[in-house]
Amino acid sequence: MSSLATPTRESTATSVPYADRLRRAQVEMARQGIDLLVVGASADLRYLIGYEGHESERMSVLVLPRDGEPHYVVPGLEAPLLHDQRDLLEIMPWEETEDPAVKVAAVAGTAALGTVAAGDELWSVFTLRLQRAMPRARWSEGGQLLRPLRMIKDEREIALLAEAARRTDESWEEFLTTSITELTEWEVRDRLMGLLTVRGLQPVFCNVGSGPNGASPHQTASDRVIGPGDAVVCDWGGSLEGYNSDVTRTAHVGEPSPEFVRAYEAVRAANQAAFEAVRPGVPCQEIDRAARGVLAQAGYGDAFIHRTGHGLGLSLHEEPYLVEGNTLPLAEGMVFSDEPGVYFPGQFGIRIEDTVVCTADGGRRLNEATRELRVMG
Amino acid sequence: MSSLATPTRESTATSVPYADRLRRAQVEMARQGIDLLVVGASADLRYLIGYEGHESERMSVLVLPRDGEPHYVVPGLEAPLLHDQRDLLEIMPWEETEDPAVKVAAVAGTAALGTVAAGDELWSVFTLRLQRAMPRARWSEGGQLLRPLRMIKDEREIALLAEAARRTDESWEEFLTTSITELTEWEVRDRLMGLLTVRGLQPVFCNVGSGPNGASPHQTASDRVIGPGDAVVCDWGGSLEGYNSDVTRTAHVGEPSPEFVRAYEAVRAANQAAFEAVRPGVPCQEIDRAARGVLAQAGYGDAFIHRTGHGLGLSLHEEPYLVEGNTLPLAEGMVFSDEPGVYFPGQFGIRIEDTVVCTADGGRRLNEATRELRVMG
Repeated sequence: MSSLATPTRESTATSVPYADRLRRAQVEMARQGIDLLVVGASADLRYLIGYEGHESERMSVLVLPRDGEPHYVVPGLEAPLLHDQRDLLEIMPWEETEDPAVKVAAVAGTAALGTVAAGDELWSVFTLRLQRAMPRARWSEGGQLLRPLRMIKDEREIALLAEAARRTDESWEEFLTTSITELTEWEVRDRLMGLLTVRGLQPVFCNVGSGPNGASPHQTASDRVIGPGDAVVCDWGGSLEGYNSDVTRTAHVGEPSPEFVRAYEAVRAANQAAFEAVRPGVPCQEIDRAARGVLAQAGYGDAFIHRTGHGLGLSLHEEPYLVEGNTLPLAEGMVFSDEPGVYFPGQFGIRIEDTVVCTADGGRRLNEATRELRVMG
Repeated sequence: MSSLATPTRESTATSVPYADRLRRAQVEMARQGIDLLVVGASADLRYLIGYEGHESERMSVLVLPRDGEPHYVVPGLEAPLLHDQRDLLEIMPWEETEDPAVKVAAVAGTAALGTVAAGDELWSVFTLRLQRAMPRARWSEGGQLLRPLRMIKDEREIALLAEAARRTDESWEEFLTTSITELTEWEVRDRLMGLLTVRGLQPVFCNVGSGPNGASPHQTASDRVIGPGDAVVCDWGGSLEGYNSDVTRTAHVGEPSPEFVRAYEAVRAANQAAFEAVRPGVPCQEIDRAARGVLAQAGYGDAFIHRTGHGLGLSLHEEPYLVEGNTLPLAEGMVFSDEPGVYFPGQFGIRIEDTVVCTADGGRRLNEATRELRVMG
């Protein structure tokens, strides 16, 4: 027996208005012409009912009709964990010899003849079984449906994101007081994740790229031993009641070269320019352009090989995406990363990433760990 | 920026015959009448190409036609990580403004007019986009296709599972030398996971249920403080090069009651009976019946509320499932859990779980941590 790889330690805050979120999802379904929403174990589920579910080969699905009561079709074994959800929805346990897709179709009723949205992260094996159990349904992406809700954070959500960010900043300030020479990237990773744990965050990820490894923005970590002359890109985060932090800082071991300093300052200026461009109504792509313009101006246009940012909340990557082509206007309550970077294959990489909230007056940074170039031993 | 929540530390062993696995998948596709297989970031992907992928909103898909070369449609950012896969398949990076589903359909060619199997864990958002990009395809479950391959472990796989199990056993033996009175379940969890880490395993999960919490087999852990009189069900595991351990032991704090001892011995006998029933050719459900028969005989039939076991490998839960109704015959090289348990709501739970390999001569246990009832302080 086994279950969730990344469990959550806190009990559901009964003060969170899950019933209200479910109602707002139904309003949005009406607006988008969707008759039924099915959501498996995921951040979407946690957002809607305060329970993330167990991702496993056993189907568990929230079934929300546009008109009618929400049901949760869940393995019988898991049902006892749902004490906080009993007032919110009808719990329908299935036993090991039953077919849960048939139960979902039964709950759906005539909604199964219309348009069914599936939560983006629902596994294909469940999607295909539900498609077979509801053969007349048209299918659409649940992410599009839930985006307008999840994208705008309420006060409690922003407070949790701010607190997760603050503790992650603290982990960096403590990290900077140590030496990393002779450590492997894995050891740096373990140290940073440990510094999150002692602050009560659930460590979620930590990518460390030193020297040439820093030039690959998706590098996780490696056995490479860090030494003088290395730039070290650290991108890490943890979660607090499910809400994530996501910070990147780039330190240098020993004195950096003038060309490194020049590139670093360009990235810092790009991070600042993106931050200053934030305000309600500005299209997402304009934030990307603000950062990209600064780097292009400095001659680093080709070295900035990814988008400027992504939304952050119960998921590490969510809407809104700050990328060319996204004309969605920013709105108060959106939270996203601001993370320009430059990458020189075979040499080094630099990235600086903060979490930013869009407020009525403009951007508010949730991270304040120093963005100045720091030299480590 | 951020990426993999559960990264893998070891580089791909180039000695692993991934090309052979891809060929065998194609043979199985021909046998099952499947024209195309698409696999996202998952254990399936790791099994086939030695790379697990990054689960994110960016589509990454292995595209394997029954006849033809494998391609991997992957975000441009991720392509540099695939150095070990370059000889195995054609890597097709997509840039942030491209539509990867269109690229997949282009690679698929005429195979998109036939039957397409999707890896079980592919997110619905990608499944639906691929369905739109290949509107004439019939869809089937990739799990059914890959089951015959992944279910039978080769020598290297069994060696890794055995070593992961051995280190997990060691963590239990060390754990038993400590006191847990006054610890919360979360603290016990952290201790057990730490005991995996120091042995070079990547901790994957740890569920701790003490006293009445042990009666819920899917409990993760809680703030409950453990004290004398508590039975404590610990279910935990780690991974070694992706291969998982999964062990459960139930200890008792202070002297147990005679009724607890009686139930414990019944579970132990059920675990033994299931183990002894293992041999090639025996249907999976017979292993379940062997355990269930012992518990029913002892009067605990209603307290054993889950199946007896699940396959174990690169996934924590995979085929074969030891459950009533599964007539699949066991075969040499299958690896699965043997984990009967009894649950008394409001009182306590007991479960004993080992990993077992089916060999030509019968079962071989990979776990040898004591199954005797141990009293802790």
